[in-house]
Amino acid sequence: MGGRTGVWLIGARGSVAVTSMAGAAAVRAGLVEPVGLVGETPALAGVGLTPLADLVFGGHDVVDTPVQKRAEQLVQTRVLPAALPAAVADGLRAAEAEIRQGAHRDDRTPQAETAARLADDLTSFRVRNELDRVVVVNVSSTEPPVSPRPEHADLPALRAALRTSPDVLPTSSLYAYAAFTAGCPFVDFTPSTGARLPALDALARQLRLPYAGSDGKTGETLVKSALAPMFAARALRVLSWSGTNLLGGGDGQTLADPAAAASKTASKQRNLAETLGHEVDGQTHIDYVPDLGDWKTAWDHVSFAGFLGVRMSLQFTWQGCDSALAAPLVLDLARLTARAHRAGEVGPLGALAFFFKDPVGTTEHRLAAQFDQLCAWAAGLPA
Amino acid sequence: MGGRTGVWLIGARGSVAVTSMAGAAAVRAGLVEPVGLVGETPALAGVGLTPLADLVFGGHDVVDTPVQKRAEQLVQTRVLPAALPAAVADGLRAAEAEIRQGAHRDDRTPQAETAARLADDLTSFRVRNELDRVVVVNVSSTEPPVSPRPEHADLPALRAALRTSPDVLPTSSLYAYAAFTAGCPFVDFTPSTGARLPALDALARQLRLPYAGSDGKTGETLVKSALAPMFAARALRVLSWSGTNLLGGGDGQTLADPAAAASKTASKQRNLAETLGHEVDGQTHIDYVPDLGDWKTAWDHVSFAGFLGVRMSLQFTWQGCDSALAAPLVLDLARLTARAHRAGEVGPLGALAFFFKDPVGTTEHRLAAQFDQLCAWAAGLPA
Amino acid sequence: MGGRTGVWLIGARGSVAVTSMAGAAAVRAGLVEPVGLVGETPALAGVGLTPLADLVFGGHDVVDTPVQKRAEQLVQTRVLPAALPAAVADGLRAAEAEIRQGAHRDDRTPQAETAARLADDLTSFRVRNELDRVVVVNVSSTEPPVSPRPEHADLPALRAALRTSPDVLPTSSLYAYAAFTAGCPFVDFTPSTGARLPALDALARQLRLPYAGSDGKTGETLVKSALAPMFAARALRVLSWSGTNLLGGGDGQTLADPAAAASKTASKQRNLAETLGHEVDGQTHIDYVPDLGDWKTAWDHVSFAGFLGVRMSLQFTWQGCDSALAAPLVLDLARLTARAHRAGEVGPLGALAFFFKDPVGTTEHRLAAQFDQLCAWAAGLPA
Amino acid sequence: MGGRTGVWLIGARGSVAVTSMAGAAAVRAGLVEPVGLVGETPALAGVGLTPLADLVFGGHDVVDTPVQKRAEQLVQTRVLPAALPAAVADGLRAAEAEIRQGAHRDDRTPQAETAARLADDLTSFRVRNELDRVVVVNVSSTEPPVSPRPEHADLPALRAALRTSPDVLPTSSLYAYAAFTAGCPFVDFTPSTGARLPALDALARQLRLPYAGSDGKTGETLVKSALAPMFAARALRVLSWSGTNLLGGGDGQTLADPAAAASKTASKQRNLAETLGHEVDGQTHIDYVPDLGDWKTAWDHVSFAGFLGVRMSLQFTWQGCDSALAAPLVLDLARLTARAHRAGEVGPLGALAFFFKDPVGTTEHRLAAQFDQLCAWAAGLPA
Repeated sequence: MGGRTGVWLIGARGSVAVTSMAGAAAVRAGLVEPVGLVGETPALAGVGLTPLADLVFGGHDVVDTPVQKRAEQLVQTRVLPAALPAAVADGLRAAEAEIRQGAHRDDRTPQAETAARLADDLTSFRVRNELDRVVVVNVSSTEPPVSPRPEHADLPALRAALRTSPDVLPTSSLYAYAAFTAGCPFVDFTPSTGARLPALDALARQLRLPYAGSDGKTGETLVKSALAPMFAARALRVLSWSGTNLLGGGDGQTLADPAAAASKTASKQRNLAETLGHEVDGQTHIDYVPDLGDWKTAWDHVSFAGFLGVRMSLQFTWQGCDSALAAPLVLDLARLTARAHRAGEVGPLGALAFFFKDPVGTTEHRLAAQFDQLCAWAAGLPA
Repeated sequence: MGGRTGVWLIGARGSVAVTSMAGAAAVRAGLVEPVGLVGETPALAGVGLTPLADLVFGGHDVVDTPVQKRAEQLVQTRVLPAALPAAVADGLRAAEAEIRQGAHRDDRTPQAETAARLADDLTSFRVRNELDRVVVVNVSSTEPPVSPRPEHADLPALRAALRTSPDVLPTSSLYAYAAFTAGCPFVDFTPSTGARLPALDALARQLRLPYAGSDGKTGETLVKSALAPMFAARALRVLSWSGTNLLGGGDGQTLADPAAAASKTASKQRNLAETLGHEVDGQTHIDYVPDLGDWKTAWDHVSFAGFLGVRMSLQFTWQGCDSALAAPLVLDLARLTARAHRAGEVGPLGALAFFFKDPVGTTEHRLAAQFDQLCAWAAGLPA
Repeated sequence: MGGRTGVWLIGARGSVAVTSMAGAAAVRAGLVEPVGLVGETPALAGVGLTPLADLVFGGHDVVDTPVQKRAEQLVQTRVLPAALPAAVADGLRAAEAEIRQGAHRDDRTPQAETAARLADDLTSFRVRNELDRVVVVNVSSTEPPVSPRPEHADLPALRAALRTSPDVLPTSSLYAYAAFTAGCPFVDFTPSTGARLPALDALARQLRLPYAGSDGKTGETLVKSALAPMFAARALRVLSWSGTNLLGGGDGQTLADPAAAASKTASKQRNLAETLGHEVDGQTHIDYVPDLGDWKTAWDHVSFAGFLGVRMSLQFTWQGCDSALAAPLVLDLARLTARAHRAGEVGPLGALAFFFKDPVGTTEHRLAAQFDQLCAWAAGLPA
Repeated sequence: MGGRTGVWLIGARGSVAVTSMAGAAAVRAGLVEPVGLVGETPALAGVGLTPLADLVFGGHDVVDTPVQKRAEQLVQTRVLPAALPAAVADGLRAAEAEIRQGAHRDDRTPQAETAARLADDLTSFRVRNELDRVVVVNVSSTEPPVSPRPEHADLPALRAALRTSPDVLPTSSLYAYAAFTAGCPFVDFTPSTGARLPALDALARQLRLPYAGSDGKTGETLVKSALAPMFAARALRVLSWSGTNLLGGGDGQTLADPAAAASKTASKQRNLAETLGHEVDGQTHIDYVPDLGDWKTAWDHVSFAGFLGVRMSLQFTWQGCDSALAAPLVLDLARLTARAHRAGEVGPLGALAFFFKDPVGTTEHRLAAQFDQLCAWAAGLPA
């Protein structure tokens, strides 16, 4: 089965990370059913994922609120059941003990130095806990959009720049760089740049490491990827697809920024066009509504033409808890990426597109097709 | 390509039939794009369907309003574009000329006699128009639920009963019987009994004929079959799935009948359970709201549990025009069933489940899987 | 201000009652803001309602789960904040100490005897707590529909029947009878019969007592009564109004019964017709969906014609917590009815229609007009 | 009754204007019921409005498409019934004959000169048609936001500037100026500046003229003004109110401009705060979705706290035809403003707030209260 696997979370004291840790502990203690964990379904049985009981958690963060305290806050916002933090106190304490100081965005230290420190944390975590491998998963806050630089496309130039520059890489990419240099696969769960730079792709390939991303598919886009293929298969012509996302959580503030929103909207309409085979009108709004807390509501309106051009419409409203939607995917992705690493997979893991809004390594956005590819890929991995 | 194909519609002067006829004429004249026609998409290109231009329409009905008049009414209710009836007048006139008197529910004639008359109409239509084959498609009003009788399960007993009984078979099944005896494949587009009796299945197999059904999937169930697999694939636990359908059309009145509705609700929840792997709470209502006319609105509410049991919800509203949704499926089904007949397929066509709420010959209800099966089946048919 | 007022709840250990008691205690302790309490808004300031601090709770019930235990359960279902039961423990204990055994539906004792016992409980509560008056509020489970009997319309005949019959009155009406004989005003918060019998109206008038009802307006009907007048004022013609209510709570099961539902639907469409001035198509469904617990979701679809007959639509979805919606109304109604009693009002209190789905004493169903009437009436009461 | 009244429409060849003209003709010919016309309801019976038959239409426009042609286009987009243009051909022809060249935004002529020309058109229309009075109603496209200038607040300074400047006033205000100088009341049906400048208010008062505005309330805001008072009256605390408007019509493009949208959003949230008594989170989006044509869809999501802080939500979706919603209000406003003029009312008509998103002369935004004020005002007007 491949021994114990480390799950190193960037943003380890955030809502998603703590829900992942607490949830993994609760499921392995039999306190709750493994709802939301694709890795526990018959579809992925027998593919050799690390058992939940053999996952060990650690991570980086720049905030100080300990994991236990954050778990209590998650009870207040109705993400965690009231009795859970006490019931999994040991697991939370163990994870908290493995959290190290992360990289600060405004740190003026040359990034090579910071990367070395981060990589040391990873290596030391692996050795100390006798882990077969460590998968790094970025669940920290979304970064503002980043301007391209020539070094991003050229590994030697990047290495040179890192030695002197404090900001040639956005923080998410610095973590990916550190992960790769420590021999760890990397998963981008956020829309930040992360490993999605040609220079980092080159590094991953050089070091024979797989990576996955980007941007966990937990709500509106999930439903969209289930519904858009319906219109395509039935030859119904989508005329417009408009959406509004109301988010209260930490990311709401970043994502509601017009520039960030514009880039997300463009990406969403592009994905849609890839599924439908033609451009589609419409915008996607992301509104920061603080009172919603960890909850989010999305409304989508699809206008389409049927036979003889008759206009019809479909609307949906999705109401969910962001952390509870994201956390099981984090566990699934850590286990699947560890499995890919064990099997010797290298570069972007297109087979994990099922979990992402903007999948690397594929242009397949149809949910059912992504699921079929995931299952086929997992079943075909060499032991 | 297999020469010309007859499309014989039971309920030939109804909204769905007339929209099918007018639409086929409009598409083949290049007046509108083939929106809604799966048979015209790349997915089914090259599988050898009869070209739209080689379809010839006829049918049975018990009402007298001619096809041309009905087309004008469909303009009033915004189903057909204003200019269409005039533009396809020749096609409508030709179809009207091929409509024959149907079977009346209260006719006291022994059903064998009526069946012989109906079968003669089919044979004569085929000969007169030099058709390679005729597919019979039932698009007439939905029947009230039918009580089972022993003859329904035993072909010889059924044949004996037909000689004297005026009502051993419900009308929809009498049409299926007549179709089979005339050597025609049969498609149940309604939820009526049609060919779904063991005795009729035996007859179809004896005569080496295929049949398809039941109940065209044009709205709420279509969306449901796209969304339910999302919950299953993501291991999210659906707690309840409730739906309300508001229908104004002719079938609204029949379907809103509590007994009919109860049987439909049971069937819908059963399909859901087959996809999700467990029973699901909830009811499906069908309300007859005359002012909606040919339009329908469905609202579905799905309550589900995510990770750690957190409760979330998804709602959707579908607003569509029933005839415009059904008509292209009628054309697709006629062409695909004709193709199956040519290829020598016999018995229930499970591969056409993509088009039906209650598919015969399969328990697959996941839309994307149905679409994959359809494409694979069609591609694999012998020329 | 009129001294202390007793609030005697029929169903005192149920969700609504316990939320009312716990909430009153929390508001008067300054733990939470008085959200939802109309009696605490400027609109009703200065009309002389009993201060929340001067309300004393007691009641009848036939279940044994103590108030404190029920409060804990309400924390589990997210109705009460986690810390509340401990914070208002004294208030809950005091209320629990004033709960007496209620009337059982299948008790074969002559109802006059039971009524005397219930009235004794009320009198003894008033005396023991030195209360100026006691208002009885029925918040118990909804009764099944009741068959009319001649005694219901004739007070002497009713009195005679009560001496021997164990069931001439439905239980809700027996409570109203007992309340009146003990000199207490009565509020029907449920759709049960309660005081709505000519014989009980006669009794209330004879004893110079006011009563209010029926059926607290907490969700779909509340929104409907705000929206229907919009269509009327704008001369837009409502063609159909359809609704589906999904309820998980105790009443869901009773209300989902087809007979009960039919009577509720009829009453809802009648209220609509009174506001709109014409009959309206459409049905209202009530579905029992156990997993929703104390939460409810309602979807309404309104189809209407605008200028030149153009068809348009309005839909709404209301998602709320039944007990949290009902409890503040219970407190408002108890205080307003006590105030009416002090002012010498007699018979049905039409001015309280603002709080009810089926208001007694008025045919006004427009929410804003009801609110204006409430404020004007309260402001005009003699000290 | 006050003789014949002229209705002079700025934007007379636009959708709203032509729907108003065609609709008035259809209603007075008895072809359709007066649905949507508040002036034809019992609420305003007997207040002495000009009969529909005594309205005479004319207007300014800068486009050339004649009214008759536009009416045909409105049939295509399902705003007008197919048979209507022919049935009211005389009325449309008469209106078309009374349309004069409007003011161009980039005209370099001194505005005093243009205003004189526009005023001459009004006077000549009144004389030629022997009208008692002419009400000018602006239904032209929405202007981009306008920068304030000192002359806007000072009538003599404005008059001086007009003599030389081609653009001291935005076009909508130039029309208001011209209307006033010709002795005509003015109605702002759009969100453009129109009469809302201190200098124009001074002019209206000097000339003893009434004016009304701004921005006809035809959709999302209409529903909002019916629902927001419900939360206020029930003491429920609105935490956020978010909205998305999808518009396909001409104004969609202007309103979707971020600057225009920002100003509209600010105004919408301010109105809400005036009704609710506190600031409310949330944004209002306006998206231009060309395929929707004259139809619009709005989705609003309201998050609110109930008793004990429990979070609940209300959503609504409004789907309507913009011109069919606006046109009857144009007729109502023209008749009511003419009536106010006859009664000697001067300055902003706060009593017409019922019809406007941003009413002048009042801060009342509650729909029912606005309706009551309208009825009371109309009933109290001197003959």
